[in-house]
Amino acid sequence: MTVKVGVIGATGAVGQRLVQLLAPHPEFEITALTASSSSAGKTYREAAKWRIDAPVPEDVGAMEVGETDPSAVPDDVALVFSSLPSDVGAAVEPDFCEAGYVVSSNSSNARRAEDVPLTVPEVNPDHLDLIEVQRDRRGWDGALVKNPNCSTITMVPPLAAVDDAAGLERVEVATLQAVSGAGYSGVSSMEIIDNAIPYIGKEEGKMETESRKLLGTFDGAEVDWHDMDVAASCNRIPTIDGHLENVWADTAEEFSPEDATEAMTDYPSLDLPSSPDQLIEVFEEPDRPQPRLDRTLGEGMTVSVGGVQDTTHGLQFNCLAHNTLRGAAGASVLNGELLLDTGYL
Amino acid sequence: MTVKVGVIGATGAVGQRLVQLLAPHPEFEITALTASSSSAGKTYREAAKWRIDAPVPEDVGAMEVGETDPSAVPDDVALVFSSLPSDVGAAVEPDFCEAGYVVSSNSSNARRAEDVPLTVPEVNPDHLDLIEVQRDRRGWDGALVKNPNCSTITMVPPLAAVDDAAGLERVEVATLQAVSGAGYSGVSSMEIIDNAIPYIGKEEGKMETESRKLLGTFDGAEVDWHDMDVAASCNRIPTIDGHLENVWADTAEEFSPEDATEAMTDYPSLDLPSSPDQLIEVFEEPDRPQPRLDRTLGEGMTVSVGGVQDTTHGLQFNCLAHNTLRGAAGASVLNGELLLDTGYL
Amino acid sequence: MTVKVGVIGATGAVGQRLVQLLAPHPEFEITALTASSSSAGKTYREAAKWRIDAPVPEDVGAMEVGETDPSAVPDDVALVFSSLPSDVGAAVEPDFCEAGYVVSSNSSNARRAEDVPLTVPEVNPDHLDLIEVQRDRRGWDGALVKNPNCSTITMVPPLAAVDDAAGLERVEVATLQAVSGAGYSGVSSMEIIDNAIPYIGKEEGKMETESRKLLGTFDGAEVDWHDMDVAASCNRIPTIDGHLENVWADTAEEFSPEDATEAMTDYPSLDLPSSPDQLIEVFEEPDRPQPRLDRTLGEGMTVSVGGVQDTTHGLQFNCLAHNTLRGAAGASVLNGELLLDTGYL
Amino acid sequence: MTVKVGVIGATGAVGQRLVQLLAPHPEFEITALTASSSSAGKTYREAAKWRIDAPVPEDVGAMEVGETDPSAVPDDVALVFSSLPSDVGAAVEPDFCEAGYVVSSNSSNARRAEDVPLTVPEVNPDHLDLIEVQRDRRGWDGALVKNPNCSTITMVPPLAAVDDAAGLERVEVATLQAVSGAGYSGVSSMEIIDNAIPYIGKEEGKMETESRKLLGTFDGAEVDWHDMDVAASCNRIPTIDGHLENVWADTAEEFSPEDATEAMTDYPSLDLPSSPDQLIEVFEEPDRPQPRLDRTLGEGMTVSVGGVQDTTHGLQFNCLAHNTLRGAAGASVLNGELLLDTGYL
Repeated sequence: MTVKVGVIGATGAVGQRLVQLLAPHPEFEITALTASSSSAGKTYREAAKWRIDAPVPEDVGAMEVGETDPSAVPDDVALVFSSLPSDVGAAVEPDFCEAGYVVSSNSSNARRAEDVPLTVPEVNPDHLDLIEVQRDRRGWDGALVKNPNCSTITMVPPLAAVDDAAGLERVEVATLQAVSGAGYSGVSSMEIIDNAIPYIGKEEGKMETESRKLLGTFDGAEVDWHDMDVAASCNRIPTIDGHLENVWADTAEEFSPEDATEAMTDYPSLDLPSSPDQLIEVFEEPDRPQPRLDRTLGEGMTVSVGGVQDTTHGLQFNCLAHNTLRGAAGASVLNGELLLDTGYL
Repeated sequence: MTVKVGVIGATGAVGQRLVQLLAPHPEFEITALTASSSSAGKTYREAAKWRIDAPVPEDVGAMEVGETDPSAVPDDVALVFSSLPSDVGAAVEPDFCEAGYVVSSNSSNARRAEDVPLTVPEVNPDHLDLIEVQRDRRGWDGALVKNPNCSTITMVPPLAAVDDAAGLERVEVATLQAVSGAGYSGVSSMEIIDNAIPYIGKEEGKMETESRKLLGTFDGAEVDWHDMDVAASCNRIPTIDGHLENVWADTAEEFSPEDATEAMTDYPSLDLPSSPDQLIEVFEEPDRPQPRLDRTLGEGMTVSVGGVQDTTHGLQFNCLAHNTLRGAAGASVLNGELLLDTGYL
Repeated sequence: MTVKVGVIGATGAVGQRLVQLLAPHPEFEITALTASSSSAGKTYREAAKWRIDAPVPEDVGAMEVGETDPSAVPDDVALVFSSLPSDVGAAVEPDFCEAGYVVSSNSSNARRAEDVPLTVPEVNPDHLDLIEVQRDRRGWDGALVKNPNCSTITMVPPLAAVDDAAGLERVEVATLQAVSGAGYSGVSSMEIIDNAIPYIGKEEGKMETESRKLLGTFDGAEVDWHDMDVAASCNRIPTIDGHLENVWADTAEEFSPEDATEAMTDYPSLDLPSSPDQLIEVFEEPDRPQPRLDRTLGEGMTVSVGGVQDTTHGLQFNCLAHNTLRGAAGASVLNGELLLDTGYL
Repeated sequence: MTVKVGVIGATGAVGQRLVQLLAPHPEFEITALTASSSSAGKTYREAAKWRIDAPVPEDVGAMEVGETDPSAVPDDVALVFSSLPSDVGAAVEPDFCEAGYVVSSNSSNARRAEDVPLTVPEVNPDHLDLIEVQRDRRGWDGALVKNPNCSTITMVPPLAAVDDAAGLERVEVATLQAVSGAGYSGVSSMEIIDNAIPYIGKEEGKMETESRKLLGTFDGAEVDWHDMDVAASCNRIPTIDGHLENVWADTAEEFSPEDATEAMTDYPSLDLPSSPDQLIEVFEEPDRPQPRLDRTLGEGMTVSVGGVQDTTHGLQFNCLAHNTLRGAAGASVLNGELLLDTGYL
């Protein structure tokens, strides 16, 4: 018995990853695909300029793409995965929720809204119950659940491990982000070959706020954001996939690199299909993790950590995650699995 | 009237840049070149696998390369530029100083020694007088002067501007460093294409200590290192030239981004031949500076800054410098010019 | 006394190179700049997202950009440089010619037209007189002159040297082309990092036909195309600038690599301001020319050749030219200089 | 029942791929690993600087590495896979053969020797019987079998399909080769970022001779090399894995692109464990195959073809194969499987 699902915004870089993950999924079955009106009416194979280094899943390739509107999605679809440009997401996702669909969304709109759960299943699954507040307030039969920004997801699991044990007070983070995070045409080759760009629009703000909401406390009515200070500096570099981050974390209590390593290694994963056996893998080699070598660990769902050392004020470490798997499509699918597991579908 | 100079370690990546800068220099004339014994006896053109995107300077190409030993350098050479592996530098540079040569060295050995001046001419020219302490102590007729590590030089001018005005207390810095910093065979292509490496051996320690010595106070007898806290995280990325850095600087006094921008822009340059008209160029565009676009500003001797903004604790900004010009060969030449200007030659 | 010139399509990748070359030009003075309607009314600095690693020329940066229409260009402008998308060029260039402007165009439209001279000044300057046929036929006061495609220009000078001496019968050419050839947003980074694309739309056809027109014979009335067989295979690779090409050239007469090298080296350059001292530079080192090291030879106007060797049927060699200088903007400027020199302005 | 095998030269780029392929192999079991004396005595995990984007196989990682000498390999090992530098291979491989081991070698030494079979199992499996000539002549109990150079393997299957149907007369081939073909430290990053190198030592000669031996006829006593004319031009480009090649093939008989496509698509694969279901996959999309997208087709053992079109003299097409799988380690393993299947083990 599988749950019928739809993918809205199915032709973009994250949309293709969603299709790649959902086509062989044990719990979900893709029965609807939507994209912009220029793609509507085409087969998925025609509409998506497929750019993943594995073939288009056979069955999905032959499906017809509809326009991104609730009317294009059959009623027996319970769950819709969304990866739309944020302005489109802001306009369209509420329509789907109103029409009764549960939406697991990777789009950046509404992530900070008071009544929208922003969840990384292994870190703050309890925040999902914000759905009840949301339904009360908005009168929806459906629901809207968000996963955070790819660069935020990368650092949050190791930060959660540190916070649980020693209390986070202040975080600085510098990112080295892959081009796939900007979508297929987001970064031109002339901009990035032999280059780096020390700016990604709105990314710093996302990291600074979403991390505090994720590590905040949900009391059944609202999320009390974590009061740590977060300052991010975001860079684009010439890598295809995998965001690497340098983190400084000041802690309330002293916390040795050894204890931090143990806390991260022991940080529990979940039993959901897309959750990796090991959520956080800590490398001893000082030059790891590296994007090309380590981004596919745990089928791209593990967060890798290395270079754990102490500073005068706390800890310093590096972390890495696959930005379109753990950081986007995989994060949405994982939220979908949590929604199923907790009975929201 | 030019000063006769030698280049020891002339065939490596920085050695080639030294030759490129010194060949047309208005004050210096190359009359001796040395390298390892396998190169000795060859012409420079044969010995150096020249990899700069401009031809080998005609005259220098025809010169014979000697072995790296004081006996290979004529007596009328007053100044020797050194860019040797640190273990070779540690073994050989004192011999040159003892033999009466003034050595302007880019090698990393002895940079933290008590009686060795570590100078960026525009920032701490007064430290050069540590030569007198050095000569007293070591009985040398020559002298040994060092420029700092390429990643340190990049951040020190803007930090100096901030320190002068508002007092530095704590610095975090993440670097995105070009492959040329590791020399011609330092980083293999299989390591770095579609990748980044979050580790450069000993680099973090160099940034943490050299910056404190450079911004320290010289009282005529010794340098009192700056007591700020510095934590560095160093990354190699797939760029040819130009180190980009993300800096957080906590200040003792409040200091607005506008004031910081003004302090940096107004930070004085020098009248030396290799000093740029504008030492620090601050960009308003949030996505600048970028390595490929901005590394050659001021003939590669300007430090570019961008993204200046405030944080809860002070400032955040990005900076960039050409690592083999401002960060290495140009830094050594500039020290040579300062030595000439101050009468040490 | 300088000639007043305009640049139409001034904000694109080649347009920026035209501005870079024309701003300090000894014979030309930019007095008009045009672009698409979205740029019209802005200063050039605002309209062009300048991406050259040197600052925008001061005076030009402050000029106002007009819309691409003859009415936007003052009457005292004698010469207009055009680098428009080919469909726009096809629609607009005739209007400029009709309005009396001489147009030196890099756009691909009309390159094969019977009465349009397609010239590389050092190779077939006599074809310029096709202008008289053109004026007769079209009744224009102005004129339209084209330079060939960037990949064609790269191989034509060495092929001309071979053809003059030994007669070309058949040419195969494989290209390794830089991303700048496709304009700023032509190749996305996700397409090309760690990749190569064995296809560039219409490029093979351009190489196969334009080379035959260029090496054809002009008898005062028409150009009799060269009857050699040309087969091209075009690839995009992750380089910023510089097209590298592998060429096989079957010759009518035997022609040794030594003779070919001599013929290429001796192939005459011109006295025009943008023509390099040495038109074709032949390397002895087997691993040269290389894009990054050799593309700026002769201020980017020299064609480099290497690996000259014989085959059973003739010769094999590699050639390289800077695609946006010798291959585009520089080619148009050179045609402009030839037009001035030959009295067409 | 598995056959015990050894890997000599196990720590290099191809050696690591051999380990990756053999560790889970259904027919073979690794029981011996050798490398240079500096690695001997270490565990494989310590000795190999593992650079594949998947973990070291658990069991193999813990094995001790011996020195490359027959005495380091147990007697019950029947088959030894060799990936040594050619000079080491030339010195050592005969010792192994003499000691009774069958050696499936990727090293370039002896590939053109009269009595050494050079085989691509799907193309010329019958050449394997040259082993009998070899044993007669050399008095070995073991045997030496070679697979060709990675760039040769890429083009030979599609050329074989063309040759069978229409007769090859002349081939020109330009290659765009990945850096892994040169081993881990073969190409430095400073050489190849934003660059291409039109020269790979001895590679052109290998392609020109090995392809003629592979497509030659074996009459039970010797291989009569194919008399086609082959001219190769070899380039290194900034890709990690996957050699892309542009091929022109003159045929004795007319052969349409449609017929060529059919002949290639229908070219039979084998039933060996490492042989892909589809040996040659022909793309209709003109911009495929591409290294990053298509190198892993058929677990990296499929040869991809695209851009099939006719020329005045025959055909033109592009082909691609994963250079360290189909082009090296996979080729050796496939030869090992053929040796087992044909009773030579």
